[in-house]
Amino acid sequence: MVDTPVFLPVGSQGTVKTLIPEELKDIGIQMILANTYHLYLRPGTAVVEKMGGLHKFMAWDRAILTDSGGYQVFSLAPLRRVSNNGVIFRSHIDGSQHLITPELAIQFQEALGADVIMVLDECPAHDDSFEVVRRATERTHRWAERCQKAQRRNDQALYAIVQGGAFSQLRRQSAECLTSLGFAGYAIGGLSIGEPKRVTLDITEETAALLPEDKPRYLMGVGSPEDIIESIARGIDIFDSALPTRVARNGAIFTWQGRHNIRNAAYTQREEPVDPDCNCYTCRTFSAAYLHHLFNCNELLAYRLATIHNLNFMHNLMSKARTAILSGTFSSFKDSFLAGYKTTDEQARLEQKQKRLKSREPG
Amino acid sequence: MVDTPVFLPVGSQGTVKTLIPEELKDIGIQMILANTYHLYLRPGTAVVEKMGGLHKFMAWDRAILTDSGGYQVFSLAPLRRVSNNGVIFRSHIDGSQHLITPELAIQFQEALGADVIMVLDECPAHDDSFEVVRRATERTHRWAERCQKAQRRNDQALYAIVQGGAFSQLRRQSAECLTSLGFAGYAIGGLSIGEPKRVTLDITEETAALLPEDKPRYLMGVGSPEDIIESIARGIDIFDSALPTRVARNGAIFTWQGRHNIRNAAYTQREEPVDPDCNCYTCRTFSAAYLHHLFNCNELLAYRLATIHNLNFMHNLMSKARTAILSGTFSSFKDSFLAGYKTTDEQARLEQKQKRLKSREPG
Repeated sequence: MVDTPVFLPVGSQGTVKTLIPEELKDIGIQMILANTYHLYLRPGTAVVEKMGGLHKFMAWDRAILTDSGGYQVFSLAPLRRVSNNGVIFRSHIDGSQHLITPELAIQFQEALGADVIMVLDECPAHDDSFEVVRRATERTHRWAERCQKAQRRNDQALYAIVQGGAFSQLRRQSAECLTSLGFAGYAIGGLSIGEPKRVTLDITEETAALLPEDKPRYLMGVGSPEDIIESIARGIDIFDSALPTRVARNGAIFTWQGRHNIRNAAYTQREEPVDPDCNCYTCRTFSAAYLHHLFNCNELLAYRLATIHNLNFMHNLMSKARTAILSGTFSSFKDSFLAGYKTTDEQARLEQKQKRLKSREPG
Repeated sequence: MVDTPVFLPVGSQGTVKTLIPEELKDIGIQMILANTYHLYLRPGTAVVEKMGGLHKFMAWDRAILTDSGGYQVFSLAPLRRVSNNGVIFRSHIDGSQHLITPELAIQFQEALGADVIMVLDECPAHDDSFEVVRRATERTHRWAERCQKAQRRNDQALYAIVQGGAFSQLRRQSAECLTSLGFAGYAIGGLSIGEPKRVTLDITEETAALLPEDKPRYLMGVGSPEDIIESIARGIDIFDSALPTRVARNGAIFTWQGRHNIRNAAYTQREEPVDPDCNCYTCRTFSAAYLHHLFNCNELLAYRLATIHNLNFMHNLMSKARTAILSGTFSSFKDSFLAGYKTTDEQARLEQKQKRLKSREPG
């Protein structure tokens, strides 16, 4: 049981970077995401299975969702060759060659043992042509069906992934095809991969409207506070993104007014917490001056304290959204949040995103 | 009130790397060491004072000892010029020029507000000539007296530092001179800086015997389990060293049988904890396989979990030593510990030490 809308912190390699499970629980986190691609390469899905499964391995007894590895193969692996059978790719770690098929994606995820698992999908680039996206989408449908058939465990919810790029027609076909196959939940993939924010939101809105109301709708990889709130308004229940934890390690601290950079010299002598209204461990315990000092010295504790703060912010944001939905005031909550929250400049955001995609940095 | 013998984890920059105060308390840590040199350079002792002092700044309400900065000036600063007045040195961070005198060392430490503060001393190299060491020792005595006179706060215990290198005659003169001045405690400085272990232990034994029985005796910078146990046998009460936390971040895990390297492939599929007999959070919660995986992936959580384990080991070691002393069985405890604990090869140890001293790595 997980309350929605929910934001899943990313624990790519079986650890939400810098944190122990108890810290995630203290914040109130109910569910996290782990990456099959990363765990398949290290330590290996068979090792995790032998150690008792991912929950036991990382000492996390709440919900876990694993992605299929598809997105990482398409974004991280330096070389890949797609066929109808599956994808042959090279590891971004040591260049070794590997094969992933829909059947193997399910096998790996059954070995890991997450609560929610994902179909293998083909994720085209945001600027691929209609024809390329169409072929990838159709292949994604065939793979989804094969994943369904490959499933052996009956204690894992299998979610399908709608593809179709920025093409409304393809998104519609994808949603119709996958819902007709019948899955426990539906994800929207292939967004937030470099396209303008307007496109992300429009396609999210169109696609979400085509997905069953009684099944979870999951927008993959969307993670800025403003995008999440906009997407909740468009019917999304589940989000995951490495953004809040990644930017935390760069010193970007979420507040209700927007992101602040704790490395800024203005914090050198600030005795108040980073966010005086915040209830997280970091803000309850330390001054902004201390956190600034830790970042200034590149102390490892800095990354941890900032991560706690940002995940706590995301959790509070989702709680507030949920409360507003239940009380029928989501629309005004959304307006007031967006009015107060200064977002990152769109041009700068896109440039950062492209740079990160090009660098093939994980998480 | 601090139980002795005690080992002080090092929090050079106002943080025991990777840990929060609650984790140190959970282990049972009663006292830590912070470096005046580092805090003077960043964020500045005046900033720490303005933020309410070091205890508040780092949210640590138990005991703190600050060193005077002397040792770091002699080991880290790329350039220094010593005169009777004090030391002019360049920062290892930005090359900026600074002056430290006995009076300033006290002023900085009063601003930080630790419970125990140290005199400024001149620390010669382990292979300096008798004449060089003699001059440094005599200067250390004059500086100790000036530190005493410079003290304004009456709520901080000031400890003197015995110097004299490996020269018994100088050590005796130093101990006699400093005890005649009368301090709250006495440290033995200028050891564990590259000399053979036999020399460290012999000089420790000789010097400790010359220091008052009713005052704490503090052996600076000694931190391997075997050296600590040998030094307790020679009358030492207080230890500090970055070794247990530094080697933890390299994957060296203390056990009662000696150090184990968790990066070793033998741990890939080990379902038991790193040390099945250990009561620390890491061993209670995770398999050796998980810790191995985190190190293998360079995950930040690895450093934290290994640090918890090694500090817990040090704390247990000191508790056992204390219990043995109280029950009059220390000698057999020592023999049985040393018989079971495989120490690092002496030649390898010296080479590592020299390398680290040359690289001027902090902590």
